[in-house]
Amino acid sequence: MVKMDPKLRIDALKEQSVASNIEFFLITDIKNVYYFTGFLDISDATICLIIPSGATPLLLTYPLSYELALEKAGGCTVKSVESGKISEQIINKAVSLNVKKAYFDKLDFPTYLKLRDKGIDVNQDGDMIWKLRRIKDADEIELMRKAAKLADIGMQAGLEAVKVGVFEYEIAAEVEYAMRKGGSEGTAFETVVASGPRSAFPHGLCSDRRIQGGDFVTLDLGAVHKGYRSDITRTTIAGKASKRKKELFNLVLKAQEEAFHHIRPGIVGKEVDNVARKIIDDGGYGKMFVHGLGHGVGLDIHEPPRLSPRSNDVLEAGNMVTDEPGVYIKGFGGVRIEDLIHVLADGGERLTKTPRGLEV
Amino acid sequence: MVKMDPKLRIDALKEQSVASNIEFFLITDIKNVYYFTGFLDISDATICLIIPSGATPLLLTYPLSYELALEKAGGCTVKSVESGKISEQIINKAVSLNVKKAYFDKLDFPTYLKLRDKGIDVNQDGDMIWKLRRIKDADEIELMRKAAKLADIGMQAGLEAVKVGVFEYEIAAEVEYAMRKGGSEGTAFETVVASGPRSAFPHGLCSDRRIQGGDFVTLDLGAVHKGYRSDITRTTIAGKASKRKKELFNLVLKAQEEAFHHIRPGIVGKEVDNVARKIIDDGGYGKMFVHGLGHGVGLDIHEPPRLSPRSNDVLEAGNMVTDEPGVYIKGFGGVRIEDLIHVLADGGERLTKTPRGLEV
Repeated sequence: MVKMDPKLRIDALKEQSVASNIEFFLITDIKNVYYFTGFLDISDATICLIIPSGATPLLLTYPLSYELALEKAGGCTVKSVESGKISEQIINKAVSLNVKKAYFDKLDFPTYLKLRDKGIDVNQDGDMIWKLRRIKDADEIELMRKAAKLADIGMQAGLEAVKVGVFEYEIAAEVEYAMRKGGSEGTAFETVVASGPRSAFPHGLCSDRRIQGGDFVTLDLGAVHKGYRSDITRTTIAGKASKRKKELFNLVLKAQEEAFHHIRPGIVGKEVDNVARKIIDDGGYGKMFVHGLGHGVGLDIHEPPRLSPRSNDVLEAGNMVTDEPGVYIKGFGGVRIEDLIHVLADGGERLTKTPRGLEV
Repeated sequence: MVKMDPKLRIDALKEQSVASNIEFFLITDIKNVYYFTGFLDISDATICLIIPSGATPLLLTYPLSYELALEKAGGCTVKSVESGKISEQIINKAVSLNVKKAYFDKLDFPTYLKLRDKGIDVNQDGDMIWKLRRIKDADEIELMRKAAKLADIGMQAGLEAVKVGVFEYEIAAEVEYAMRKGGSEGTAFETVVASGPRSAFPHGLCSDRRIQGGDFVTLDLGAVHKGYRSDITRTTIAGKASKRKKELFNLVLKAQEEAFHHIRPGIVGKEVDNVARKIIDDGGYGKMFVHGLGHGVGLDIHEPPRLSPRSNDVLEAGNMVTDEPGVYIKGFGGVRIEDLIHVLADGGERLTKTPRGLEV
């Protein structure tokens, strides 16, 4: 389905962990399993991928997902396991390979304790996989470009649906329908259509509030293409904007633009955040910018690297991050403008392309 | 939003755990937080709900979700926390209350280890909350009835869209649009439209395969109403069914009907499963019924109680379970028929009502 080569990714994982003497990777996060095999299981029926340092990877699934895993999963052996025998299978495998040091991404306590009881040094280190996943390869960039295009299609449909008298959730319906018809696998996250005073809630979802004239309407949405996600936010007005609303909008837009122009390899997450935050602070709304400037996007909607006041993440070419400053005024409304940015060798590239104007 | 009374639910939690001397509940699962406060946060910005045995519950959020939490969360104090200071806040609270024994639903390892280092006996016991959540109260039943109705609306739209030449994902688009327009908060899980040989994958999602004449088409979908989910599957035929397909369909239908008539308080999960499994086994397809008969549904799409060959879960009035036998024949296709069942004092009630015929 995806062109990615599981073997290359597994080799990269092994290579970067050679120094830590890890003999046994236990991958239970379903997105990580997809990353290393090409098989994405939404059924809660894929148990784990075991990657021994010197043997073929082994994918354990429940019978429910066995046939699909056989068809989709590359670079590994697939085995169907009866429920209730899972820890046993994992532990037997580790013991039979005489493993001394194991790594896992996420693990339930009982299995953790059993592995430890077998004298295995068990380590959790999510970062090891994120070091790979945060840098998108050519295949992933292509998939995310498509996901971003689908988000633009959704945004276009959503903006067209913003009219006085319409329910927020009806706008979400148009967004999601357009993305699905375009080929999106559902939504990257629960669509936000927050209007009027509700636009002051950064993640206000949808309600059965009707759009009123002069309302800020914030649409925050994303599509999914072969598991890869996109993320875009636009704030618009139903009808005419007041002077204060225009000023607020332009301030946030300026912060978003300036931050965008600072995105490049080598810059630190908090430095990019600070570019936008300073502009909003100077405009008098610093305390109402209640979240970080952005986050990484990929198979998950929130990934490393982070762009926030405390983030020491250093941007690298191949990162995908959002640039999304916002100002939220209780009772009055809020503005957020967000694009998905691909970090290139010499700057940023907006993957989401919907115009950023206030009035549609 | 939901009429539920957080205080009653928290009292029930404390009451059932009196014997275990727990002084401090640490609730991090966002669905559990919703269950006990009425505030559902999809932003990854609610950190945890702390329920001390003798003090007011405390909800910790990042600034992003603070205002929304203040508006929505009942029965607790809401506090906004800077990222990077979370473990500290939790540990200080526990230490200040002189807690000896704490319980958590899910916890990251670092916080777990820090609490243990403070001499606190830290226990994980998801079952304690599931004992409450698996029995739906009157408010929840009403919400799930609505979610089931929205799923019927989606199924109706999906069945109408099944036509030779249509892409699977176009059918999903119609399903999801109809549910959203009806007021659903997105989908309960990723919609499945699996046609022809793909119907042999129990969770085959959607592809860009076009429906062909005589194909089995399996639609598995669900809606969401105020966080509560529904789940329904129908298998239909594009055009005319062959004799073998009709027989297979009728076998699965018989298994589903018989299992339904056995659903009542007191019966054990594996007993209900066995009713359906025996029928399919007698029909010669036992090995191709590769999953359990059903699962609980609520705020999560897969919850206790389970109906499966190994499940010792005993059904109780107020449970919501699926009844979904299936047969999957590689290369040929598959049939699954599923309803969402409310366990009443004297039997089962189908909440999903779409007719179960093969030909639309």
